[in-house]
Amino acid sequence: RYGEAESEDMVGVVTGLAWTEVGGDILSIESVVVPGKGNIKPTGQLGDVMKESVSAALSYVRSRSITFGIKPTLFEKRDIHVHVPEGATPKDGPSAGVAMATSIISVLTGIPVRREVAMTGEITLRGRVLPIGGLKEKLLAALRAGITTVFIPKDNEKDLADIPESVKKALKIIAVSHVDQVISQALVRPPEAITWVEPEEAQVPPVESEAVVRPH
Amino acid sequence: RYGEAESEDMVGVVTGLAWTEVGGDILSIESVVVPGKGNIKPTGQLGDVMKESVSAALSYVRSRSITFGIKPTLFEKRDIHVHVPEGATPKDGPSAGVAMATSIISVLTGIPVRREVAMTGEITLRGRVLPIGGLKEKLLAALRAGITTVFIPKDNEKDLADIPESVKKALKIIAVSHVDQVISQALVRPPEAITWVEPEEAQVPPVESEAVVRPH
Amino acid sequence: RYGEAESEDMVGVVTGLAWTEVGGDILSIESVVVPGKGNIKPTGQLGDVMKESVSAALSYVRSRSITFGIKPTLFEKRDIHVHVPEGATPKDGPSAGVAMATSIISVLTGIPVRREVAMTGEITLRGRVLPIGGLKEKLLAALRAGITTVFIPKDNEKDLADIPESVKKALKIIAVSHVDQVISQALVRPPEAITWVEPEEAQVPPVESEAVVRPH
Amino acid sequence: RYGEAESEDMVGVVTGLAWTEVGGDILSIESVVVPGKGNIKPTGQLGDVMKESVSAALSYVRSRSITFGIKPTLFEKRDIHVHVPEGATPKDGPSAGVAMATSIISVLTGIPVRREVAMTGEITLRGRVLPIGGLKEKLLAALRAGITTVFIPKDNEKDLADIPESVKKALKIIAVSHVDQVISQALVRPPEAITWVEPEEAQVPPVESEAVVRPH
Amino acid sequence: RYGEAESEDMVGVVTGLAWTEVGGDILSIESVVVPGKGNIKPTGQLGDVMKESVSAALSYVRSRSITFGIKPTLFEKRDIHVHVPEGATPKDGPSAGVAMATSIISVLTGIPVRREVAMTGEITLRGRVLPIGGLKEKLLAALRAGITTVFIPKDNEKDLADIPESVKKALKIIAVSHVDQVISQALVRPPEAITWVEPEEAQVPPVESEAVVRPH
Amino acid sequence: RYGEAESEDMVGVVTGLAWTEVGGDILSIESVVVPGKGNIKPTGQLGDVMKESVSAALSYVRSRSITFGIKPTLFEKRDIHVHVPEGATPKDGPSAGVAMATSIISVLTGIPVRREVAMTGEITLRGRVLPIGGLKEKLLAALRAGITTVFIPKDNEKDLADIPESVKKALKIIAVSHVDQVISQALVRPPEAITWVEPEEAQVPPVESEAVVRPH
Ligand SMILES: [Ca+2]
Ligand SMILES: [Ca+2]
Ligand SMILES: [Ca+2]
Ligand SMILES: [Ca+2]
Ligand SMILES: [Ca+2]
Ligand SMILES: [Ca+2]
Ligand SMILES: [Ca+2]
Ligand SMILES: [Ca+2]
Ligand SMILES: [Ca+2]
Ligand SMILES: [Ca+2]
Ligand SMILES: [Ca+2]
Ligand SMILES: [Ca+2]
Repeated sequence: RYGEAESEDMVGVVTGLAWTEVGGDILSIESVVVPGKGNIKPTGQLGDVMKESVSAALSYVRSRSITFGIKPTLFEKRDIHVHVPEGATPKDGPSAGVAMATSIISVLTGIPVRREVAMTGEITLRGRVLPIGGLKEKLLAALRAGITTVFIPKDNEKDLADIPESVKKALKIIAVSHVDQVISQALVRPPEAITWVEPEEAQVPPVESEAVVRPH
Repeated sequence: RYGEAESEDMVGVVTGLAWTEVGGDILSIESVVVPGKGNIKPTGQLGDVMKESVSAALSYVRSRSITFGIKPTLFEKRDIHVHVPEGATPKDGPSAGVAMATSIISVLTGIPVRREVAMTGEITLRGRVLPIGGLKEKLLAALRAGITTVFIPKDNEKDLADIPESVKKALKIIAVSHVDQVISQALVRPPEAITWVEPEEAQVPPVESEAVVRPH
Repeated sequence: RYGEAESEDMVGVVTGLAWTEVGGDILSIESVVVPGKGNIKPTGQLGDVMKESVSAALSYVRSRSITFGIKPTLFEKRDIHVHVPEGATPKDGPSAGVAMATSIISVLTGIPVRREVAMTGEITLRGRVLPIGGLKEKLLAALRAGITTVFIPKDNEKDLADIPESVKKALKIIAVSHVDQVISQALVRPPEAITWVEPEEAQVPPVESEAVVRPH
Repeated sequence: RYGEAESEDMVGVVTGLAWTEVGGDILSIESVVVPGKGNIKPTGQLGDVMKESVSAALSYVRSRSITFGIKPTLFEKRDIHVHVPEGATPKDGPSAGVAMATSIISVLTGIPVRREVAMTGEITLRGRVLPIGGLKEKLLAALRAGITTVFIPKDNEKDLADIPESVKKALKIIAVSHVDQVISQALVRPPEAITWVEPEEAQVPPVESEAVVRPH
Repeated sequence: RYGEAESEDMVGVVTGLAWTEVGGDILSIESVVVPGKGNIKPTGQLGDVMKESVSAALSYVRSRSITFGIKPTLFEKRDIHVHVPEGATPKDGPSAGVAMATSIISVLTGIPVRREVAMTGEITLRGRVLPIGGLKEKLLAALRAGITTVFIPKDNEKDLADIPESVKKALKIIAVSHVDQVISQALVRPPEAITWVEPEEAQVPPVESEAVVRPH
Repeated sequence: RYGEAESEDMVGVVTGLAWTEVGGDILSIESVVVPGKGNIKPTGQLGDVMKESVSAALSYVRSRSITFGIKPTLFEKRDIHVHVPEGATPKDGPSAGVAMATSIISVLTGIPVRREVAMTGEITLRGRVLPIGGLKEKLLAALRAGITTVFIPKDNEKDLADIPESVKKALKIIAVSHVDQVISQALVRPPEAITWVEPEEAQVPPVESEAVVRPH
């Protein structure tokens, strides 16, 4: 049933946590890959800030792709569609950034996301995890939805003091400062890095005989 | 006559159900295919949410195309135009998503849609069917238009308690949690999956002699 | 003189009928073809709804082009400009759809439109003709402009009861449910269908030796 | 001095006539050609309606280019910039259409425009000249600026009754119903048509052996 | 120090003159060339009118490039970025057109602009210089900034009567009717024209054997 | 912890200084490089002015790339994403221009930025550093965040009189008039220039036998 944790581990489907005026809620973030040219299409009535956090998540993944076992050339042939149902509900804010990155890595590697996991945190281009608001409401929503493990930003650890003991007992709460800590634990198995020696001519176009390049 | 069920099974034409301030109505969703490059053109004064649900429907179909017997390479040569008459009436909301997917699959496979069928439900990128509003009004509109079978979201089954017995007797109501349950029953025959082994070099561009790829 | 029926049969020029606050009027819809890539350019201060009806008309024509004797490949080399003078007057609504399709077919086939003919009706992607408003005002405007034959939507036949007998005597009124009924009568001669067997490789890109396609 | 007739015949420079709240004025319409791909760039704080009339003028010229001695293939290699100084003054309306067409034909053929000539009139895609407003103010402005010949729309001839005799004596006023009547008289010499037999393969892409095209 | 005349002659850097509610000011207009495709990027919070005057300046330069010793083919390989600091101050109006053209020619030819020179004037596509407002305030600003020579539009010569004698003594004021008069004096040396015989096939695509072109 | 100086020298990460109604703050500016075509993507709820200063920074770097040891051809193969967390906070103004340029040069050369350094200053296309506002608040924010060295615009030196002695003692304040002074000191080692002799044919497309280029 929608609004609850998934009933099976799925590729590209990640549970995020939202915080609204009426309390916390879970967000199901979905990605699929289709043939294309490295573009990303964010849908689900996402505001500017959330769209930008999809961009930041993608750039992080692209700039570090071999660490996740994703061949850089894959992006020349594929587009990614990231959708956040329920389609009529406007959503915004940067706190789904870590979940976006996780969804994108899952769909590009084909490694499913653990269904009992949820996460919240802003992502930077370097993969750092920045603090978010509404931690209490988000954790309560996770609990209601049947989630058992939640990743939160390291900088929000101090807010755990305000969380009821019952919630902290029922949930495994993992504080992280970098998105790679999430990736290695939230997928059913960690991605394996590849070694990628880019052909010299792809790094920079061939130097013509007339072109001389030397330090001076 | 417009506003009634079709008089014959047609390719790409699906009956959706709308819910407005003045009651329910049927929506005739039409798709045609023209030469192009995999783009989709939604028209009929569609709002942002409905346009995004056309996108989600298309991405679902593209990411699962071989299941429906559609060669992935078809999208490199074709555009799809999805239009919802009456052109002067603004339309919005995510509840036509399942009908959009059905229309797209029909037009791409050439398999007609059963003319006596209507449907309502939001679609996700994974093909899940999410609940909608206005079930009662929509079922009454279907009945008025001469529809005999209606697909509704599984999560709306609970709302059937409020539907008059006469309506439930006159209509065959099928509750579904996944769009594939609709596809297999709403088309005059189910699409047949194909096996598609994509050439290795299309999956990822060729690895140059200088490029070494290995796990480490 | 502008505002009257044309003095000769012209290619791409069709008389539509508009309905405004101050009564009915005729619209002269013009199309020309220039070298291009299958794009359409609508001008004449057209509103969103009228622009979308130009799109719907074009997609209908493209998806059925061989029926009208138009080689599908023509669109790869041509753009179509559809203009509705008088350029300073805003125009909107879907009721010029049938006239748009007729103008496009005329200009692509080179077959002139009968100068004594006018038409009104919304078009769908399948060529169905949907009902319009302001029938009486439109017929009066047609009469004033020297038009002798008017195509109207089948679903507007019921409104003929309100039309003065004098108008119905002076005009030949033809009710249609499909745009092809207009095309076959409004052009000076009906287009002749061609047989077009698209090369297998254009339908879908060639299947590489590594790619195996079979139903299962 | 700006605001007066040109002191020499110039290529691509045409005097139009504007009508504003504070009376008539002359507009100097300029076109230049630069390498490009058939695009047109209109500048000078032009409103939507005036931009569309630039489009209509261009499409008329393109669709009839051989009549004006312009090889159709020229547009594949050139862009046209149409500018209306004074750049800070907003301008709008369709009445400069005939002047736009004249400017474009002049710059594409290299034939200068007679410096003593001004013109006003809306243009359609077929080159018809439609009536305009403010005839009196425009003629007075032309006279003030030292213009000796003015082209006006045929449908405005009736308005000449309200023009002072002194103005009608001082100006040669030529009423036209088609833009070609302007082109043949306003340029220092009429363009000469060329015969252009387009290569069969450019008209429509080559028919493959598998593609059979025949009427049936 | 910013807001004063440059301390050395620089390529692509031109001093314009602005007129605001609080008096005159100088504008430092900068251009750089980067690899590209003939596009221009205007920045510095420029309004519509100023952006259009950048376009007009560029089209003038492109259409007359060989006069300035610039090979027409250069534009196929280069973009031009025109920036007007201070980046937070909105700027608008057409009066920097002559300065824009001078900056563009300087950067494309590599000839520096004399640092003691400032200029004001609208430019047309034919290089004519149109009058501007605020002459007095602009001249005072030039003087304050250490400028010694100012180019003004010929049509503003009449406004010199209102300028204090002290200003007219301290500044060399040169009135021009065409931008080429500025170019020949404001750069440290005048550009030298080249002769450019464009290959016949670039002027118009080759005429196929089936294509016959002749006057008739 | 976010909001403090970095704990290690990082490639592409630069500390800027912001000035808001509630005082000064530090901005962490991040760039990453991904495969692409020389485009730049600025995110982080940046206003128009800040986006334009990213453009100016990039154009400065591109136009001087060999000075920084960056092959000009690198831009044909790479896009740059510049992001400023925190993603939900709107940011605007030109004063991060110098930091943007430093971040871009760092990420393109692979040379890390010293973690104890912060900077503020508008950049022009020629690399000049223009003055900024809020110097006092910015210096205090730098101090709070653990920064030890701050680059400020030469034209702001006069504002140092208002800065408390304790701040001036705790911070090394370096006033610069050109961005290259920052680059040579803020990176862990200065970039080394390369010599780049561009192939003649890349400078300008080959001259055909019919094309003769000579001064006259
Ligand atoms: Ca919910
Ligand atoms: Ca926003
Ligand atoms: Ca209806
Ligand atoms: Ca919306
Ligand atoms: Ca009229
Ligand atoms: Ca609208
Ligand atoms: Ca004037
Ligand atoms: Ca408008
Ligand atoms: Ca200033
Ligand atoms: Ca404006
Ligand atoms: Ca902060
Ligand atoms: Ca702004």
